[in-house]
Amino acid sequence: MIEATADIGLIGLAVMGQNLVLNMNDHGYKVSVYNRTTEAMRDFINGPARGTSVQGFELLTDFIASLKRPRRIMLMVKAGGAVDKVIETLEPHLDDGDIIIDGGNSVYSDSNRRTEMLSLKGFRFIGTGVSGGEEGARHGPSIMPGGDIEAWPFVKDIFQSIAAKVDNVPCCDWVGGGGAGHYVKMVHNGIEYGDMQLISEAYHLMKDMLGMNANDMGATFAKWNRGKLDSYLIEITSQIFWVRDDDGEPILEKIRDSAGQKGTGKWTSVDALDQGIPLTLISEAVFARFLSSLKEERVAASRVLNGPRGSAVLNRDAFLNDLEEALYAAKIISYAQGYMLLKVAADNYGWNLNYAAIAHMWRGGCIIRSRFLNDIADAYSTDRNLKNLVLAPFFTKALHHAQDAWRRVISTSVQMGIPTPTLTAALHFFDGYRTAKLPANMVQAQRDFFGAHTYERLDRPRGEVFHTNWTGKGGEVTSGSYDA
Amino acid sequence: MIEATADIGLIGLAVMGQNLVLNMNDHGYKVSVYNRTTEAMRDFINGPARGTSVQGFELLTDFIASLKRPRRIMLMVKAGGAVDKVIETLEPHLDDGDIIIDGGNSVYSDSNRRTEMLSLKGFRFIGTGVSGGEEGARHGPSIMPGGDIEAWPFVKDIFQSIAAKVDNVPCCDWVGGGGAGHYVKMVHNGIEYGDMQLISEAYHLMKDMLGMNANDMGATFAKWNRGKLDSYLIEITSQIFWVRDDDGEPILEKIRDSAGQKGTGKWTSVDALDQGIPLTLISEAVFARFLSSLKEERVAASRVLNGPRGSAVLNRDAFLNDLEEALYAAKIISYAQGYMLLKVAADNYGWNLNYAAIAHMWRGGCIIRSRFLNDIADAYSTDRNLKNLVLAPFFTKALHHAQDAWRRVISTSVQMGIPTPTLTAALHFFDGYRTAKLPANMVQAQRDFFGAHTYERLDRPRGEVFHTNWTGKGGEVTSGSYDA
Repeated sequence: MIEATADIGLIGLAVMGQNLVLNMNDHGYKVSVYNRTTEAMRDFINGPARGTSVQGFELLTDFIASLKRPRRIMLMVKAGGAVDKVIETLEPHLDDGDIIIDGGNSVYSDSNRRTEMLSLKGFRFIGTGVSGGEEGARHGPSIMPGGDIEAWPFVKDIFQSIAAKVDNVPCCDWVGGGGAGHYVKMVHNGIEYGDMQLISEAYHLMKDMLGMNANDMGATFAKWNRGKLDSYLIEITSQIFWVRDDDGEPILEKIRDSAGQKGTGKWTSVDALDQGIPLTLISEAVFARFLSSLKEERVAASRVLNGPRGSAVLNRDAFLNDLEEALYAAKIISYAQGYMLLKVAADNYGWNLNYAAIAHMWRGGCIIRSRFLNDIADAYSTDRNLKNLVLAPFFTKALHHAQDAWRRVISTSVQMGIPTPTLTAALHFFDGYRTAKLPANMVQAQRDFFGAHTYERLDRPRGEVFHTNWTGKGGEVTSGSYDA
Repeated sequence: MIEATADIGLIGLAVMGQNLVLNMNDHGYKVSVYNRTTEAMRDFINGPARGTSVQGFELLTDFIASLKRPRRIMLMVKAGGAVDKVIETLEPHLDDGDIIIDGGNSVYSDSNRRTEMLSLKGFRFIGTGVSGGEEGARHGPSIMPGGDIEAWPFVKDIFQSIAAKVDNVPCCDWVGGGGAGHYVKMVHNGIEYGDMQLISEAYHLMKDMLGMNANDMGATFAKWNRGKLDSYLIEITSQIFWVRDDDGEPILEKIRDSAGQKGTGKWTSVDALDQGIPLTLISEAVFARFLSSLKEERVAASRVLNGPRGSAVLNRDAFLNDLEEALYAAKIISYAQGYMLLKVAADNYGWNLNYAAIAHMWRGGCIIRSRFLNDIADAYSTDRNLKNLVLAPFFTKALHHAQDAWRRVISTSVQMGIPTPTLTAALHFFDGYRTAKLPANMVQAQRDFFGAHTYERLDRPRGEVFHTNWTGKGGEVTSGSYDA
């Protein structure tokens, strides 16, 4: 007879799962574990979990029997069909009110669906983003839970105790209903793509325009990491420059310049397109990875296509100061765009998102953790209804301060032929966002010209539409005839 | 008893359908028509089709009985579920080998599915893009058919006779299997979004940077339309400037600067993200429409966010010459990106696309028709295996010729605070594509640092992966633990 003494059960003992279990154990929780292949479970129990109170089970029924009510079962299995399969296997053994937690990297729409489906059956579902990699999982990840809010009180203590802490605030809080947790994780990953590409562009300018060596670049990033760019990614970037290969040369320069990806940045861009949000920076970062992967094509093209003939006279220190400002300003825009996406998703899905809490969740444990997220949290704490991050006085001031330098950096890179797609996309967004009258009236005129799509007028109320017979040749045209 | 005398039947008598019928009638084809609501059919027969040989039917069975074998039935109904519904209704009345043609704006994946589904039932399906709006449908559209190639000989004469002609070549040819026709139409629409946004950015610079009036802007576009930018969209742009409101002012300036969209540009960007192609220009064009639609937010932001303090000393004529070059160069990049997308889709779906023929199809009848498409057709006729449009000698030369001017335009717009997202995205693509070594090695180093994703080395064969213990602190890490 198995006694129900475990606080939580975890299924899926890959590294992330193992580390979460050990983390929970460290915080005094009794954890049961189960794995599809028993061997992995045994290896874990006899290896990393030796000497802990973690219990391993060969039979799913025993595993379930070992859990206190309501049962809390966390899945750390491959996102997609595997999650549904495990849920299906579990269902016959569960009781009303039992809680299933998906901690994998699921698409938020799956979590929307699972929350509803399990709720109809009397169970409770949580879909949670877990960020920070293995290291984070072991010693303090960022945890972004969403789903059935009735389940939250039963997992809150466990999650907040194992999460990273910054200023004693856990990097874990309730995000919202349905797939809100996985949504916030998705946007986090998109922002991460943007941050990484911005840093890469800065590195490109340092190396190919300023001709800096690895030591100097590493020192520059280390210096930046003591300023307003202070963040995990800037920190590891400085460290990367200093790691040498056996021959004493920086390893970095020997790494193939084709960036891989696992799709989560792409999800963010696709979602922005679906929701109508101009998420330009992250999308350019995703496209930059695509372009990088065409290595052979680029090498061949480099022999055919010439760059500009000119060369700029540059003051290195002045340019590096400008570059720090450009990086900071572009980063503000990237987060502003990410928050725009969160807002529209909250509206569309009826999530009551706490934007300051999201910034707090991202401050520690995860890849985008930074000092900067404090300022975002402050902005949303000060004004919960802040229309856009760039309109918070702190960030408006920062952008005003940075813009001349930012423009110089882009202008120079454009003249020198060094691509800076994300640094620049951010600036064009800034310039577009602060422009009361954009040239989209031309697009509307064209659409009305060739497809009779009609337009609204600035001097007339919204919703009143007009059509002009542009050619003077007449003809009955109706809207909708041409899709553009 | 109804005699089977009609060459083709058409279902769906909205304006596009009506005009296609009249066009077919003009070319000597006998057309039967049917519409869900009989009234629309009667109005058509007694109105625009009066005096023609077009036959209208109230009963679907009579309509079908009136068609010669194999029956050719073209649907001009709303894309989506309605197409499936009509097909379902038709099926019981069809014989082996009968042909259903979907001429609506369907998603290509639907056409992939329908081709296969109908083929299994012994029927033949064609999904065809039809571009050119009402005017085109009536007097010569661009027609892009794909699907079951066995159906092509039975519709080829009809389609090619009603299509637009350029140099006596019809703007209609077989595209490829399954959804290839609708795919090519989708890419056409994406390119159209890009072209329209490029023109809008040029207009923005003329108006707000050079301070030009409508007449001068119209004259500039008219002049450009006599040069290498010669195209339908440049032509209608020049005409738009000259149309006046009742008070004598240009109507253009009274049109609300919020661009609408029906989603087909967005489809192209989402597809590029799914297929891993850096389709930056079209995506920025889609995002620009999104940003334009945030009119109230922009107006509010314009009161808070300042632009740059500087102002440039500009020579108007010199700048306009530069701008023409910039527009032309960016357009080359946009089409190059579009063709990259076509190529990867052809690979992924097993379509044997004829790239020169696609350029021919787009030369007339449709919105993106231009002189420029001749040069694209020439490039692919000369070298069917052309790796990338920008590597065709004609376009390489054009880009080399244009690049200094292009860089000046962007540099100036960046300094002046006028957003030029697509003109610039194109340049960054150009600079990235011709760069043998991009900074993506940094992205790979970061991914290996925080997630042990491993990397390849430039001095080692492809497929051999390496992991570095970047912190020197050790720890067993395996790839796949962190998705980025």
